[in-house]
Amino acid sequence: MEPKLFFRLFLLIITVCFIVFFTSTSFSHGPSSTVKLFDCTNSSSSPLCASRNFLFNKKARPIGKNVPKTKPKNHDHVSDIPNHPLDPLTVMEINKVRSILSSHALFASRAPHTLNSVVLEEPDKNLVRQWVKGDQLPPRKASVIASVSGDSHVLTVDLSTNVVDLVDSPVRKSGYPIVTSEEMDSAASAPFSNADFNRTILSRGINLTDVVCIPMSSGWFGNKEDNKRVTKIQCFSTQGTPNFYMRPIEGLTLLFDLDTKQILEITDTGQSIPIPGSTNTDYRYSNFPNRDKTRPLNPISIEQPHGPSFVIEDNHIVKWANWEFHLKPDPRAGLIISRVRVHDRDTEETREVMYKGFVSELFIPYMDPSEAWYFKTYMDAGEYGLGLQTMSLEPLNDCPRNAVYMDGIFAASDGTPFVRENMICVFESYAGDIAWRHTEYPVAGMPPLREVRPKVTLVVRMVASVGNYDYIIDYEFQTDGLMRAKVGLSGILMVKGTSYVNKNQVKKDKEGNEEELYGNILSENVIGVIHDHYVTFYLDLDVDGPDNSFVKVNLKRQETAPGESPRKSYMKAVRNFVKTEKDGQIKLSLYDPSEYHVINSGKTTRVGNPTGYKIVPRATAASLLDHDDPPQKRGAFTNNQIWVTPYNKSEQWAGGLFTYQSHGDDTLAVWSDRDRDIENKDIVVWYTLGFHHIPCQEDFPIMPTVSSSFDLKPANFFERNPILKAAPNFEYDLPVCGAKSVST
Amino acid sequence: MEPKLFFRLFLLIITVCFIVFFTSTSFSHGPSSTVKLFDCTNSSSSPLCASRNFLFNKKARPIGKNVPKTKPKNHDHVSDIPNHPLDPLTVMEINKVRSILSSHALFASRAPHTLNSVVLEEPDKNLVRQWVKGDQLPPRKASVIASVSGDSHVLTVDLSTNVVDLVDSPVRKSGYPIVTSEEMDSAASAPFSNADFNRTILSRGINLTDVVCIPMSSGWFGNKEDNKRVTKIQCFSTQGTPNFYMRPIEGLTLLFDLDTKQILEITDTGQSIPIPGSTNTDYRYSNFPNRDKTRPLNPISIEQPHGPSFVIEDNHIVKWANWEFHLKPDPRAGLIISRVRVHDRDTEETREVMYKGFVSELFIPYMDPSEAWYFKTYMDAGEYGLGLQTMSLEPLNDCPRNAVYMDGIFAASDGTPFVRENMICVFESYAGDIAWRHTEYPVAGMPPLREVRPKVTLVVRMVASVGNYDYIIDYEFQTDGLMRAKVGLSGILMVKGTSYVNKNQVKKDKEGNEEELYGNILSENVIGVIHDHYVTFYLDLDVDGPDNSFVKVNLKRQETAPGESPRKSYMKAVRNFVKTEKDGQIKLSLYDPSEYHVINSGKTTRVGNPTGYKIVPRATAASLLDHDDPPQKRGAFTNNQIWVTPYNKSEQWAGGLFTYQSHGDDTLAVWSDRDRDIENKDIVVWYTLGFHHIPCQEDFPIMPTVSSSFDLKPANFFERNPILKAAPNFEYDLPVCGAKSVST
Repeated sequence: MEPKLFFRLFLLIITVCFIVFFTSTSFSHGPSSTVKLFDCTNSSSSPLCASRNFLFNKKARPIGKNVPKTKPKNHDHVSDIPNHPLDPLTVMEINKVRSILSSHALFASRAPHTLNSVVLEEPDKNLVRQWVKGDQLPPRKASVIASVSGDSHVLTVDLSTNVVDLVDSPVRKSGYPIVTSEEMDSAASAPFSNADFNRTILSRGINLTDVVCIPMSSGWFGNKEDNKRVTKIQCFSTQGTPNFYMRPIEGLTLLFDLDTKQILEITDTGQSIPIPGSTNTDYRYSNFPNRDKTRPLNPISIEQPHGPSFVIEDNHIVKWANWEFHLKPDPRAGLIISRVRVHDRDTEETREVMYKGFVSELFIPYMDPSEAWYFKTYMDAGEYGLGLQTMSLEPLNDCPRNAVYMDGIFAASDGTPFVRENMICVFESYAGDIAWRHTEYPVAGMPPLREVRPKVTLVVRMVASVGNYDYIIDYEFQTDGLMRAKVGLSGILMVKGTSYVNKNQVKKDKEGNEEELYGNILSENVIGVIHDHYVTFYLDLDVDGPDNSFVKVNLKRQETAPGESPRKSYMKAVRNFVKTEKDGQIKLSLYDPSEYHVINSGKTTRVGNPTGYKIVPRATAASLLDHDDPPQKRGAFTNNQIWVTPYNKSEQWAGGLFTYQSHGDDTLAVWSDRDRDIENKDIVVWYTLGFHHIPCQEDFPIMPTVSSSFDLKPANFFERNPILKAAPNFEYDLPVCGAKSVST
Repeated sequence: MEPKLFFRLFLLIITVCFIVFFTSTSFSHGPSSTVKLFDCTNSSSSPLCASRNFLFNKKARPIGKNVPKTKPKNHDHVSDIPNHPLDPLTVMEINKVRSILSSHALFASRAPHTLNSVVLEEPDKNLVRQWVKGDQLPPRKASVIASVSGDSHVLTVDLSTNVVDLVDSPVRKSGYPIVTSEEMDSAASAPFSNADFNRTILSRGINLTDVVCIPMSSGWFGNKEDNKRVTKIQCFSTQGTPNFYMRPIEGLTLLFDLDTKQILEITDTGQSIPIPGSTNTDYRYSNFPNRDKTRPLNPISIEQPHGPSFVIEDNHIVKWANWEFHLKPDPRAGLIISRVRVHDRDTEETREVMYKGFVSELFIPYMDPSEAWYFKTYMDAGEYGLGLQTMSLEPLNDCPRNAVYMDGIFAASDGTPFVRENMICVFESYAGDIAWRHTEYPVAGMPPLREVRPKVTLVVRMVASVGNYDYIIDYEFQTDGLMRAKVGLSGILMVKGTSYVNKNQVKKDKEGNEEELYGNILSENVIGVIHDHYVTFYLDLDVDGPDNSFVKVNLKRQETAPGESPRKSYMKAVRNFVKTEKDGQIKLSLYDPSEYHVINSGKTTRVGNPTGYKIVPRATAASLLDHDDPPQKRGAFTNNQIWVTPYNKSEQWAGGLFTYQSHGDDTLAVWSDRDRDIENKDIVVWYTLGFHHIPCQEDFPIMPTVSSSFDLKPANFFERNPILKAAPNFEYDLPVCGAKSVST
């Protein structure tokens, strides 16, 4: 789930050299125009350039030679122009930002500097809400986070006036910006220049060429780390497997200064612990010589012979069924959905539902307090960037055949734009489910009834591979007005080496209590360490406009009065308007349940209900850590499952704008404790989806996907079931399909 | 894998026979052989016969002229023979039961008698577990529940010896058997013979021919109802709509004696309440003159050009991927899954997972204590029978095109067998989801990795329409060993008439508190009353055999010792073996979480973990009613979310074998309070899935499906990820599809 990142160097260099060599001679892989765009020829050592080339290099793909469906734009994006106020910065715009900044005083000193983030500075919400197609775009601006000589700066660059506004410069809060690929790369290679490290490796009988080291964010545990930007580094053996995560060199931890590039400390608490073997750790299909062909499943596919029912207009406006929204990739959040509106067929209005929704932060605390593990308390969005940690989606497997893909345009740390191809997919899903139904026996001379409607949904998906873990983030839209946010966890566990090869070897004390392993033995010498995952969503709901209230509809037992009823009790719903933020800090409870509505008091239905949407929690988990524990202070946005804050443009990242090594002084919990008024205001709802993960052997060597979700669901938003008039499936509508081998 | 071929051949033969038959006679609807089977010619007023005729009468179907996929058997099932010890009674066997009983002393008296249930008496579990294909079947027996002159009797009929064993005769427990269709029919028509009733209807200005009345189980609220088998009856106007549920004649309730056929009491508390109008209540597609064709969705389908990957052997054994199980329809549970086993490719063993799983009972308390509503506290399985309340599934809409169907063979109340055609469907589902994945940037000279596997599942579905509500029950199997039980709720709300047409009319007291409506106004004069749904599953897990233990893996905060770690706390897992039933009564809590494992202490994995499955709750709800409230006493099986009991063949129905008007003296709660030993025993786990439902306008006039689920998931059952070697999708495997209009 987190760092590991980037050791990609060697092969990357080789790959780039290979491509450079080839383009200069005869063959060419990938669109040549992108070479100009990236200008990677002069920075072939940059992992950004290298990874971009990798993404374009179809030959390097291990499986799936399929070309993804064509996208409604050019692959190089050089001529893209913005069409909507929320459209991400284009290639041209990113280049212009770089050009403007290059002549700015802050960067003129030639001191080392890094652009940690270059994204659109979104126009004011009201401007965006009022904008309609055909209007001129509001002034385009870029929001930039830069590091210069160790200081962070927040800047706004006006692309029409070329004016640079120093919004917060230098920043004096705790925490640092997202670590760049180059920094991770330098961390990953640093150990090999260290004599002590090399000695340690050799003393364990490991070949240095088999070792890979990856940086892991250090968290923040008090003043010791203050005023130094550091990362921890741990190493693995790649010998005999691509799945080096299963072969940890346990207990060996390096502390690395990201600014001075110095190794500050080496600790080694695991000399006696063997490196787990490579047997059964490889998961590559191409590497199974005896692929198990016993009872394989027959091919299965979602088919739409007339093509998808949605359109993506102007590159970013998705229109499907009664839904319309703006979709864009984001380096930090992965993707952002904005201006979500639904067409109401009763009134023929297009009605606002959500202004903006995205994954604001993650928190992944591991549950082992020992030296080599205590710091593993990752915040993947703010420390690494979910969007930056994507690779191209694999057509037919990451998304079904009827999917359409969208590219991400991001800026490298030197400000050059690059394309993350096929970063998002959009597809219609039909799993055989039922949208609504009723059957009724013929009654009293009436005709029999059998009315059933199939459920078709629209899925928007991205996948971040933050080191070992893979996060599959789906936003699913239903025609009945429901939106579902779903998180799937797959990828590879972060495991711990142990000398035990069997549970029966675990030591017991005099009372017979087993030694605490902080997890389970998954394989010989491998412990899967217990951990949690929290994914916090920012949900700026605007139900029929921004002025909304949050209502807890509390369900509680009501005893009947004597003689009132043969019943002793019933359950009643008590509506409570939440007036301030602290009342909107909500811990879910099975035996004190509520519904959580966001309503528009100013707009009522025909029969007088305020229009609303409700947030519907499903399976989740809550953090059990001490609130004063440093990791929980930084991840304090997980102290409740739901929070409600007044809209504030600067409060978007639940762990703070500067998450890396933050002290927890700029979290959602801190903002919410100001207890501001939230009644009949523009409010933002925050929902945290949690997972406890006690690893088991089935998670070895790669984990079957575990997923959970929550819903945003209309509650008296529509006058009636909005899909009452939906059509059933008819045989004459459905495709005629043949097996490929027969048809071709 | 190639059952398709067989099906096609079969279809061809049937088609040819049909043509021959058709040309030799004139017109005929439905196979004529079934007429003999049912002999409905002389009892056309029987709802069973009526419904049977409806089911066979293709002309009567409102939509979807599609013929369901052929099944690997004859539609009339006259020649079916049992192939497995758990196979349901065949047509021949049911006929034989009737014949044996007709000469038995109990039924010789010519006193009125009813067969409430005729099902297979399952052989002893050990006999079934030891049986292998080719062995002789254990003696076939029928378990019969009969009512004779008001007494209930439990009998076993031995089909080889013709011996009738009076197991419990007459029964002296509280409660009565399932109400028969004939009884419901007599209740529904009884009011119209009552002068007071007719006067009341006419006084409301309603045409009697527009009125439909339906029986509603009365619950049990104390001695008043003792020694009388009664039902409540309420009525609706069908004028202008087939959706009469939306037009209640509010407050008019009749109490009917099911044995004497007398109306005992008429109460009328709603004379001043108008009947809600019919506008916008019809939901029939064929009745929308201006069908909304705006932006319809393009056709979408799950396609398998090589056919499904599963086979159904001997009519009831489903084999798919690594799974194998016995599937049968059941009049009370709807369907029963037995002998669930999974093939372990590591060891090439077929390993036991679950002996038997089914929906044991439902509990649906409405939350209105007033005269016309207090008794609405339904237990749909034990009062009506989930299997009996099915209609044929609608191909293409209830189940996708790649589904295969299974018929139910049940006995009518006079003992004649009848066929519930297409009662269950089985299909493979692919929604575009991911079974597992990982992408990894190229590291240290290693190749880049992008490995993704699509998720395909097998779904077994049935749908019960218990009056107004539709319960979609899915059992979903994943190739990674996970089983999911999913309940979808759709259909029509039970609503209450009100004089209010707008929320602003609701009366307030001096303190400004609104009058309690017990629900929400959904439309003019319509209140959707708050209610709960609980679905309790019986799960006889046998993980690697019957001797299992239940382990609570409790997650709790552990504070670190001073100086132990920079961390103040972590979360640790504490394993607790549950020794007796009371310790296995579990209320879920977000802040006191546990995993719930069923393990086999006698069998460990290679590294020493006991093999196990865990029950994974997802979204659910808990009953808030007073435990001493009569409905909650009867539905006491919902007092906890999980219970664990020792296997006892007589403890299968959580609300008691005789649920109708039961007093709650034979529930799961009563059994469990005996606190029997459950460690290292054959144990049964019970899980209750709950829903709170506060209706909203979107539920009017028919409800979009709401669903929830829980999982049974391997936990150290396999040595490793069992789908590690699964194949990805390849383009060359997938179908080539065209639009039907183009292709034909």
